[in-house]
Amino acid sequence: MEGVKAIEWVNGRVRLLDQTRLPHQEMYLELEDYHQMAAAIREMRVRGAPLIGIAAAYGMALGARHIETSSMHDFLAQLRPIAEALAATRPTAVNLSWALKRMTLAAEAALDPQAAREALVTEALRIHQENADADRRLGQHGAQLIPAGSAVLTHCNTGSLATGGYGTALGVIRTAWEQGRVSRVYFSETRPLLQGARLTAWELARDGIPATLIPDSAAGFLMRRVAIACVIVGADRIAANGDVANKIGTYTLAVLAKEHAIPFYVAAPTSTIDLATASGDQIPIEERPAEEVTTFAGVAVTPAGIEALNPAFDVTPHSYIAAIISERGTAREPYARSLQQLFQQEGVRHG
Amino acid sequence: MEGVKAIEWVNGRVRLLDQTRLPHQEMYLELEDYHQMAAAIREMRVRGAPLIGIAAAYGMALGARHIETSSMHDFLAQLRPIAEALAATRPTAVNLSWALKRMTLAAEAALDPQAAREALVTEALRIHQENADADRRLGQHGAQLIPAGSAVLTHCNTGSLATGGYGTALGVIRTAWEQGRVSRVYFSETRPLLQGARLTAWELARDGIPATLIPDSAAGFLMRRVAIACVIVGADRIAANGDVANKIGTYTLAVLAKEHAIPFYVAAPTSTIDLATASGDQIPIEERPAEEVTTFAGVAVTPAGIEALNPAFDVTPHSYIAAIISERGTAREPYARSLQQLFQQEGVRHG
Repeated sequence: MEGVKAIEWVNGRVRLLDQTRLPHQEMYLELEDYHQMAAAIREMRVRGAPLIGIAAAYGMALGARHIETSSMHDFLAQLRPIAEALAATRPTAVNLSWALKRMTLAAEAALDPQAAREALVTEALRIHQENADADRRLGQHGAQLIPAGSAVLTHCNTGSLATGGYGTALGVIRTAWEQGRVSRVYFSETRPLLQGARLTAWELARDGIPATLIPDSAAGFLMRRVAIACVIVGADRIAANGDVANKIGTYTLAVLAKEHAIPFYVAAPTSTIDLATASGDQIPIEERPAEEVTTFAGVAVTPAGIEALNPAFDVTPHSYIAAIISERGTAREPYARSLQQLFQQEGVRHG
Repeated sequence: MEGVKAIEWVNGRVRLLDQTRLPHQEMYLELEDYHQMAAAIREMRVRGAPLIGIAAAYGMALGARHIETSSMHDFLAQLRPIAEALAATRPTAVNLSWALKRMTLAAEAALDPQAAREALVTEALRIHQENADADRRLGQHGAQLIPAGSAVLTHCNTGSLATGGYGTALGVIRTAWEQGRVSRVYFSETRPLLQGARLTAWELARDGIPATLIPDSAAGFLMRRVAIACVIVGADRIAANGDVANKIGTYTLAVLAKEHAIPFYVAAPTSTIDLATASGDQIPIEERPAEEVTTFAGVAVTPAGIEALNPAFDVTPHSYIAAIISERGTAREPYARSLQQLFQQEGVRHG
């Protein structure tokens, strides 16, 4: 799977795998400006919390190339609306604003616009590389929690297509599989946009990991019938108290896991942890168009005029979470303390 | 909705609404022989536990018309494989075998093949009418459990399209709505075959009941965000101890309802109660083709060769169920006693 490049900076452009076309078409987009990147994020051609952070960083580097001025003051003034436009694309994943903040700081440290343009490319590449490195360490930490020969359940897509690296929850599963810890991966289709059925299926098939797709609603059945060793999911934002916003359906899986005494793990880089958000109640939850639910692959499913609720995410309270696995180690209750400790280890670079 | 006839006996044939075509086409099939009825049940052109009981009864009446003999012994010998073929179409709903048993008894009581053919038509019409009457009484019993102005959540389709009458869980909701008890119905899309998004949406829209579709996975989000007064579902088989087999996803909703202290109700006619099945562990669960999950409207969703689990039903243990609503009244824990009492009230006609 590491052959797949979900996103890549090539000669001043961004080459982006259009994830809405998967699994049937492996089509790449060539993006030249930040408008195109904002649209690609909004339309979920690129998705996954860590990857949209990376995408937004590259988007700023793209936008900076089109700012024509020799005044640093003007340059930064024109860079601001670019960052704002990218930040406004999707509200829930904190990696987006985290990456944009780092990019802005990198530009501000430069002496002139040309140096700033170069610094922005360098910083975007660094964010991308750091994420890939984080995935590897996170995978190692997480794999230790999985007993040999386990059947595990995951949700949505948290692989290379979500991070640009090895994956978060799926990175843990991959590492655990390489170590003989995973016998089978169950994964939910993840309606409405089917990131499980389309993307996780594609990644697992390429890796040759034994895997079984389930409809989202079959998770309860599965936990009663099959010995599931753990549920492991990613995150779009982790609040300071350990509450986790993640793809819609995550909370349902957490409740089911509790009922069946199955450990429920969250895997995410520290860039997903937002210590400025006290609890899950303060995380904005994106509502997406009803048409994503009332249609399926462009075909209307319901009669005309049916209302639908389409929250893209839900919040799982920290009390359901057995551990949060990051590249800096594994945090457990009380999360208010353990998450803070992850940052104190290496300074507050991600604060 | 009572204008819709999901199934009808017309001049020695059965006119059947093809539910796989809904909501886009209201297409009726004309069935002449039991083979066609068996295929229609297997392919879920007709579905819903009470309705497949009725359909199987009409199927036997159709089959009997083609038995050419004047010997009653021969007639019954030829009727048996017809009943067996219809019984084999789907394993979980007990209404199927319940109806076939009644039909067989009706034939056996006749004096000659011509009388038996007529008795079978009469008995099928009676089963259909009794089901419709049961729906009405069941609706009245169930509506009393719903406080004024409630938001309720239901799953799959349990309306006229599932019973040929007023509906079970949806019949309760309709009755409660007429009484001002229901302010809004939330209903899950019910993957993989989308009976909620296609069929329940169609029925609720025709009735003008305020309704909101949700992806199956959003039920947990909904229960945390919205004051849901109760969850109410149908059943395909209810064991003697109160365990309930119903559409896949039901158990997940029951666990979520428990976690949120929301009463979880099951609405079903007594023909769905199977006192001969001691507990849910003994209920056979139909596994349907993986293609129902890996494709949508004939289009592949996943990459080729992906394995999928596709159980059509799950079992909800009785401990999750606040009440079972039948046409003979409402049963509560201990179900082993209260379900038996429903039958003792009026003799063991349905035993």
